Amino acid sequence: MKHAMKPIRVGLLGLGTVGGGTLTVLRRNAAEIARRAGREICATRAAVRDLQKAGVHAGDDLTLTTDPHEVVNDPTIDIVVEAMGGEHPALELILAAIASGKHVVTANKALIANHGTAIFAAAQKQGVMVAFEAAVGGGIPIIKAIREGLTANRIEWIAGIINGTTNFILTQMRDKGQDFADALKLAQELGYAEADPTFDVEGVDAAHKLTIMSAIAFGIPMQFPAAHIEGITHLTGEDVRYAGQLGYRIKLLGITRRTPSGIELRVHPALIPARRLIANVDGSMNAILVKGDAVGVTLYYGAGAGAEPTASSVVADLVDVTRMLTSDPHSRVPHLAFQPENLAQDPILPMGEVRTSYYLRMRARDEAGVLAEVTRILADAGISIESMVQQEPGQADGKVDIVMLTHQCAEKQINHALSRIESLPAIAAGVMRIRVEHLAG
Amino acid sequence: MKHAMKPIRVGLLGLGTVGGGTLTVLRRNAAEIARRAGREICATRAAVRDLQKAGVHAGDDLTLTTDPHEVVNDPTIDIVVEAMGGEHPALELILAAIASGKHVVTANKALIANHGTAIFAAAQKQGVMVAFEAAVGGGIPIIKAIREGLTANRIEWIAGIINGTTNFILTQMRDKGQDFADALKLAQELGYAEADPTFDVEGVDAAHKLTIMSAIAFGIPMQFPAAHIEGITHLTGEDVRYAGQLGYRIKLLGITRRTPSGIELRVHPALIPARRLIANVDGSMNAILVKGDAVGVTLYYGAGAGAEPTASSVVADLVDVTRMLTSDPHSRVPHLAFQPENLAQDPILPMGEVRTSYYLRMRARDEAGVLAEVTRILADAGISIESMVQQEPGQADGKVDIVMLTHQCAEKQINHALSRIESLPAIAAGVMRIRVEHLAG
Repeated sequence: MKHAMKPIRVGLLGLGTVGGGTLTVLRRNAAEIARRAGREICATRAAVRDLQKAGVHAGDDLTLTTDPHEVVNDPTIDIVVEAMGGEHPALELILAAIASGKHVVTANKALIANHGTAIFAAAQKQGVMVAFEAAVGGGIPIIKAIREGLTANRIEWIAGIINGTTNFILTQMRDKGQDFADALKLAQELGYAEADPTFDVEGVDAAHKLTIMSAIAFGIPMQFPAAHIEGITHLTGEDVRYAGQLGYRIKLLGITRRTPSGIELRVHPALIPARRLIANVDGSMNAILVKGDAVGVTLYYGAGAGAEPTASSVVADLVDVTRMLTSDPHSRVPHLAFQPENLAQDPILPMGEVRTSYYLRMRARDEAGVLAEVTRILADAGISIESMVQQEPGQADGKVDIVMLTHQCAEKQINHALSRIESLPAIAAGVMRIRVEHLAG
Repeated sequence: MKHAMKPIRVGLLGLGTVGGGTLTVLRRNAAEIARRAGREICATRAAVRDLQKAGVHAGDDLTLTTDPHEVVNDPTIDIVVEAMGGEHPALELILAAIASGKHVVTANKALIANHGTAIFAAAQKQGVMVAFEAAVGGGIPIIKAIREGLTANRIEWIAGIINGTTNFILTQMRDKGQDFADALKLAQELGYAEADPTFDVEGVDAAHKLTIMSAIAFGIPMQFPAAHIEGITHLTGEDVRYAGQLGYRIKLLGITRRTPSGIELRVHPALIPARRLIANVDGSMNAILVKGDAVGVTLYYGAGAGAEPTASSVVADLVDVTRMLTSDPHSRVPHLAFQPENLAQDPILPMGEVRTSYYLRMRARDEAGVLAEVTRILADAGISIESMVQQEPGQADGKVDIVMLTHQCAEKQINHALSRIESLPAIAAGVMRIRVEHLAG
């Protein structure tokens, strides 16, 4: 691979969940990231509170300090990642980084929702970038979708499940019939809720994210103080049950909508028809619906929090900045996502080597021993049966349907077995074979 | 608004579904697009087959011609939108546009899947951009998500419902118990399938799109000839029914996956567990799952075809190119999506003015006349009841739950009515009120 240019050097403010995750992803995927960005991206310096605790992350490539100003003022650093959280001193450090000509990447939604206007004005003046994909929807590239993917549209409204803690609690309340307090306790035990869950369960975190989406959707300043905010603490198991009986699910939604008299900006629980895709977004997952006048409704779904999903967005921002600093403008984003000189030559796998499970349906004479023959052939081919579900007996032609699901095997195994099964006199020609994909991640 | 720079001039090759939709969106949303792009974007010249038929689109701003070379060679045009479809002469015209230094935007998946490598090499050499968001997933910004939003990840697999025609047919087969032939006929009558549906129902269209996604996900050349392609023509109503009984749905999936021995690249029907979000993507809608090692699974959903959804992606590409041509690199994408000097001052709507439907739950004494009083108060406030669903009689305290859904009203109306209802002696304090959002688009 060709990476003649010197690496982009990143300074981290904080090595907690977000900062630590960012470091992990930058290190693990260094080659893939360089193939995309056209240049290596290395975290070279990190400010931490506790040097001893942060020792797990130390390495030859990374210097630790307890003084964040050392990172912000380091002339060798190109981009500062603010991963401390909280408004102060994060704001002051970001402004200092901007003043010293550094680009900034942050996951700090409270900061952007409350101080975005000042931060962006400073960045504009200095000619640097401030990127904040990780501030909304964790790993979901929703900022990019709204700001770049849907630019053709007059955006009409956005509605999102943008807080994983509350969605986990509401899912528990529905699935387990728990009340709010019990579901919260479980969420805390499992690490989905913090010891002090106020910001999440009262809707403040969602309102920060909604404020940011509203600003970029409608081209208005950040107006967090004007948001209407209700949480989920008053919801009861009864309401969740009644809603279910009515054909609805209760979700904490952030909604912003353009109306002739003004912009709606509100976070509150809402009943959603159960058949809507977003009503089926469960557990700690996030999803955002965006309605544009040309595209109609689009939906974006993924993990809204966690070390690596958040790092996914932080690092995507780092790649955006790097591409901007590295390429001539016209080839900023390579046509094929990776730099042309770094395309890989992986072969396409022949279909016979592909492994999936299978749905098989065959019509068989309704007589003893047929099923034994079929299962013997499958066993000989090394294919095991997960379930055999349906035989419709007594059809007009005296035949029955045998329907089964197999465990995973290679396509050539099933092809071989099916040619033997189809040669059985008791089996009608043309066994139906459909692949099964669990898509479980 | 400030748009001192001269407009970006766009030439359209074709004014059919995609070209016509692009023109419509560019005209209707001209102001919003200019606020985002920092510059007006105008279609000034279009090549069409039939001048008379295209007359509906004519205007002072737009010159029509029957000779596409006039568009490609027009020195006043900055970007050529190829919206003719087919491989020839689209390929030759795109190469000619590139040779004359024009940027190109195309929705042509067959062209990119088959000739992308040659086209991008030519563009690279000339220093122009070739953008193709509309080639995959219609209005869903999936190319941008993979190429820019998920750059932190080693992408593991992509699985998508990327052909609306076949998804419409499969949805009909499940919901209506139709066989393939009947469902296809209906799709043709409703305009979801073409007179010759071969490319769609045989999986070729999906394979073009999958080839493109595979290339940008894994950094490999376009390899359409190596794709394994099966369509849905052999599926029967029986299989759809059996799959349902087993807890699965049948979808036509495009799947590409990285394995140690090579890249899987395959289009075929598949059983998917019914509880997966993507199994519930119905009708002509598209959805794409992307699994990255850091972010986990993300999903992108929206309209996969149609004039304006496709135009949404074409115009987003035009804005991308315009931003690149217009701004200095560091402010290519404005922090707040819109140009800083063009932020709007729409007020945030007070919550009392927001209109939604409501779920109401109140505990009432189980006695005659209470319900009449409640409904009278709601009627007085101009609030009509959509349904009243549940009364659990005979509770220990001699009270019943009254649960109802209202039609839409302003929040101040419901607040006023609830304060009156809560003052009724027969109603316990604390009526539960949860907003209902239908999110129907």
